[in-house]
Amino acid sequence: MRQTFDETTDPSFGGKHLPLIRKAMAAQGLDGFLTPHEDEHQNEYLPAANDRLAWATGFTGSAGAAVILKDKAAIFVDGRYALQVRDQVDPALFEVRDLVDGGVPAYLETALAKGQTVGYDPRLHSPDALERLSAAAARAGAALKPVAANPLDQAWGGERPAQPSAMVVPHPLEYAGESSAEKRSRVGGGLIGVGADAAVLTAPASIAWLFNIRGGDVIRSPLPLAQAILNADGSAILFLDPAKVSPELPSWLDNEVVVSAPEALPAALAALKGRRVVVDPSQSSAWYFETLAVAGAEIVRAPDPTALPRATKNAVEIEGARRAHIRDGAALTRFLHWLATEAQTSLPDEVEVVKKLEGFREQTGALKDLSFDTIAGAASNGAIVHYRPTLRLNKRVQSGSLLLVDSGAQYLDGTTDVTRTVAIGEPSPEMCDRFTRVLKGHLALARVRFPAGTTGSSLDPLARAPLWAADLDYDHGTGHGVGSYLGVHEGPQRISKAPSTIALQPGMIVSNEPGYYKEGAFGIRIETLQVVVNADPVSGGERPMLTFETLTLAPIDRRLIETVLLNPEEIEQLDAYHARVLAVIGPLVPPDTAAWLAEVCKPLIDRAED
Amino acid sequence: MRQTFDETTDPSFGGKHLPLIRKAMAAQGLDGFLTPHEDEHQNEYLPAANDRLAWATGFTGSAGAAVILKDKAAIFVDGRYALQVRDQVDPALFEVRDLVDGGVPAYLETALAKGQTVGYDPRLHSPDALERLSAAAARAGAALKPVAANPLDQAWGGERPAQPSAMVVPHPLEYAGESSAEKRSRVGGGLIGVGADAAVLTAPASIAWLFNIRGGDVIRSPLPLAQAILNADGSAILFLDPAKVSPELPSWLDNEVVVSAPEALPAALAALKGRRVVVDPSQSSAWYFETLAVAGAEIVRAPDPTALPRATKNAVEIEGARRAHIRDGAALTRFLHWLATEAQTSLPDEVEVVKKLEGFREQTGALKDLSFDTIAGAASNGAIVHYRPTLRLNKRVQSGSLLLVDSGAQYLDGTTDVTRTVAIGEPSPEMCDRFTRVLKGHLALARVRFPAGTTGSSLDPLARAPLWAADLDYDHGTGHGVGSYLGVHEGPQRISKAPSTIALQPGMIVSNEPGYYKEGAFGIRIETLQVVVNADPVSGGERPMLTFETLTLAPIDRRLIETVLLNPEEIEQLDAYHARVLAVIGPLVPPDTAAWLAEVCKPLIDRAED
Repeated sequence: MRQTFDETTDPSFGGKHLPLIRKAMAAQGLDGFLTPHEDEHQNEYLPAANDRLAWATGFTGSAGAAVILKDKAAIFVDGRYALQVRDQVDPALFEVRDLVDGGVPAYLETALAKGQTVGYDPRLHSPDALERLSAAAARAGAALKPVAANPLDQAWGGERPAQPSAMVVPHPLEYAGESSAEKRSRVGGGLIGVGADAAVLTAPASIAWLFNIRGGDVIRSPLPLAQAILNADGSAILFLDPAKVSPELPSWLDNEVVVSAPEALPAALAALKGRRVVVDPSQSSAWYFETLAVAGAEIVRAPDPTALPRATKNAVEIEGARRAHIRDGAALTRFLHWLATEAQTSLPDEVEVVKKLEGFREQTGALKDLSFDTIAGAASNGAIVHYRPTLRLNKRVQSGSLLLVDSGAQYLDGTTDVTRTVAIGEPSPEMCDRFTRVLKGHLALARVRFPAGTTGSSLDPLARAPLWAADLDYDHGTGHGVGSYLGVHEGPQRISKAPSTIALQPGMIVSNEPGYYKEGAFGIRIETLQVVVNADPVSGGERPMLTFETLTLAPIDRRLIETVLLNPEEIEQLDAYHARVLAVIGPLVPPDTAAWLAEVCKPLIDRAED
Repeated sequence: MRQTFDETTDPSFGGKHLPLIRKAMAAQGLDGFLTPHEDEHQNEYLPAANDRLAWATGFTGSAGAAVILKDKAAIFVDGRYALQVRDQVDPALFEVRDLVDGGVPAYLETALAKGQTVGYDPRLHSPDALERLSAAAARAGAALKPVAANPLDQAWGGERPAQPSAMVVPHPLEYAGESSAEKRSRVGGGLIGVGADAAVLTAPASIAWLFNIRGGDVIRSPLPLAQAILNADGSAILFLDPAKVSPELPSWLDNEVVVSAPEALPAALAALKGRRVVVDPSQSSAWYFETLAVAGAEIVRAPDPTALPRATKNAVEIEGARRAHIRDGAALTRFLHWLATEAQTSLPDEVEVVKKLEGFREQTGALKDLSFDTIAGAASNGAIVHYRPTLRLNKRVQSGSLLLVDSGAQYLDGTTDVTRTVAIGEPSPEMCDRFTRVLKGHLALARVRFPAGTTGSSLDPLARAPLWAADLDYDHGTGHGVGSYLGVHEGPQRISKAPSTIALQPGMIVSNEPGYYKEGAFGIRIETLQVVVNADPVSGGERPMLTFETLTLAPIDRRLIETVLLNPEEIEQLDAYHARVLAVIGPLVPPDTAAWLAEVCKPLIDRAED
């Protein structure tokens, strides 16, 4: 099994580790130390060696921070993790505060005393965040101080897991679709366009994309931990631990790419003296800005120049995504068949559900990894948006309830992410009403045609309006970007309430995942991935439009659909989707699954009955 | 008649006036002079005395700029005015350039020579715009220089109309709903909240609202040209030409308001030395920023603190808006009855149409002014979004065509703005298809329920999606704010593609006006005003929602509706609207109009025929 169900921390972590951290702080003369969730690479998923917040506090959520002072400490989480933090962290040691409302700055302003010095590791904080933190400390009469050696790392010492060192391998052209030399020339040309000489890249996904390489340093995504300097002429330096250089790599990287050890990075940055260098303040920590400033480089604060080219997939990547989704759809359909038949009476628990699904994906023979730990939320667990089953929380599915399964896979040709919600036994009228409203929003976002320049935040209300009409809503975004055998969450595009200036462009893959959550009762989410394409022109139309092609192919549980709530356009759209699922997936699954699929893909309204 | 159909400029203006302006420029040693459309008050509609751009060039559009150099000149307009500028301006004298794409800065960069000095009137430019213009001039090795006396005004001389001096009168509490003292205390409290001591107000609408006064200095809106300084304690100085102080005014303004002559403004600004003063860089010209900076005030660049309170109407203003719209709806319904009957055979021209409508509004006995010049666009003129009939352009309506009528009125209790598009004779299937798509978008935006925090840019796609589905769109915003017996275009809320951070809040009035325009053929727009209200809770709902109450009451031409394109929800919504129009307006119009109204407000599908 790839997915595990153990818990890696417990609430005793704070009691065991805080004294060690405070001792290391004291040795450096610090009155406090800032511990963000982020690591040196601003990854969403951290290697165990870099999950400092979890080690210090016990909290394992994907966002958060802690402030450790001599005599007290606080942990900061957002609303998603309000319940989880109380489960994982000792409240006697950590005051729990909101990460967004006030956040760390408000705490520093009241908790620090005049003259105190609080340390921070400049490799872990963005320059923008540091500015706000420094200002808050200053208002308390205290000061922040960068440390050369992280006292938490010193305290962790020998117990700390080793830095990951997975081999970095070529990502062949048959999947990447564009050579690294072409990509570097294209992105380098963009640097010339903004008058820059070079860019410093620190996001592992950017480096993987630019050099057509993949690694395994971070669980659930084939990312290599590395850094790079790209010059405007397309030449580059790739900073990579020599232990991770696979035998195939040197001949794969062309002559314009120099591979250096990470230790050479400071000197290489210093060599940028007098040059105009793009650095992304949302991706690269303050350390890069400080190092370049000291070196005398002219810093251009701008978005990572690979972000948009990486997000707009080329024809080969899109073709790969289609293949990956057909393969994944067949595995998922086998799983849904099992859920709709055997599981209705055997009533498995969540862990069994996760294992079953992983087994079907493993049987494709192409599975490189899950793209994230499968969320299988039975009944009330489905209402916890960031739920992940563990042996302790594991729940058995019950008749008359819903099961929400959000999962995905990493294949060489593409990354998948799909959610289906299925009825176990007989669903209640309320469940069907809510499911149908979520479905209406999902369908609206799947069929919309829109002009160039439209952003994801503009399209977001299409997915919510049917819920809004019933005084309902959901507290998460509607869609995120997805990488090509890379991260399952990838920017810069997104579909959410938050204002966005990034227009949706052909080749961008985004999820479409409205939901509804009734606390203590059930959760509903319907998620497919869809790629932005140029729409086929409509007769009599005047302007080119964009639209989405749905990539994910798996049936949507008809037993949860209240057909009278759908209008003819929606019924036709769902029927067409199911017909496509049957035509593409039907031939790829065993006969009994195919027969079941034919049944659940029938038109919603049986025309013979009319 | 209030509306006139003469043209106030002609293409000879440039030839007559440019030499005079150049002579005045030369006398001040200037190589050029910048002439924006904006006047000292950043009004949308200018008093004739301030329409400098029109006098210099002949161009009368609502946005634009000119650069007048010694030996050449350029005029800058946006896409809306691309045709009109060629009609009004002599191309031998003015190069026509795009106001948005490159704009004035790009022109300065290439047209100026090293060492040249270009003058500008600091009372006419926002500080942000000036920064961009100065940087552009600097790149050409030239410099901008503020002038004490505007050379264009000097050239205009005795021919220039007098500054308007309409009496400023009280706006009674029965319409305003909140005393000026309460408003000033509320807005002043907000200044304390941001640590400011005072605010400088220069927008006539803000001053009218804050002091509960109305004027007549600007056509089509009851605005007083004035300035004010509001202190955080609620006291204020109102700078107003003594000739405009009506007999009722002194006793209307309470003791905390000092009325000063405009000449006292510079000294009053100088007296703000050392104080923190809010000034809005989008409302107040560079002159205010420079004057305050020289005085040693600490400038807080922030939105006009009256903008949001003014936009969120109180209960009395909303009740007034409802009354005004019922009155206006009755007048408009009489007009639509005439259009649907007599005019179908008499085939009036646009000027007659405008006069007829103005006549019905005049007969209400309550009309203070039109809220803008009525747009009556017959056939192809309807496709020109910013069309206004003149004697020269006037077109007779034809059978088999559409007539678009966009109009509004100023009443003491409210400002209206409404567009109806009607068929003259038999409409074509294409007209009906387009009209129905516009209607679908209009209905979607009228019925949407949405949570607090939603901005107008998020709702914009709801109005466009039915057009997008047919590869169609329109090139204007979907909705603008509207004042309460104030400007018909009022911020800060709006519904448009442009990203907005202003959430829609209860009491905000916005227009809902999607359209479709087929160049050379016909134009369609359906516009009502609607006010944001707290939605009645839905049974089983969980979250409070906002929604819109439609204010405008006038039938929508059923002959243009392709019923098969509407879904049952849309049909029910339109039928309910028409039933409301009939119930409210029917009793207020003459019997023959009422009988006609009953006919055109019938349900779309005759149930008896089912």
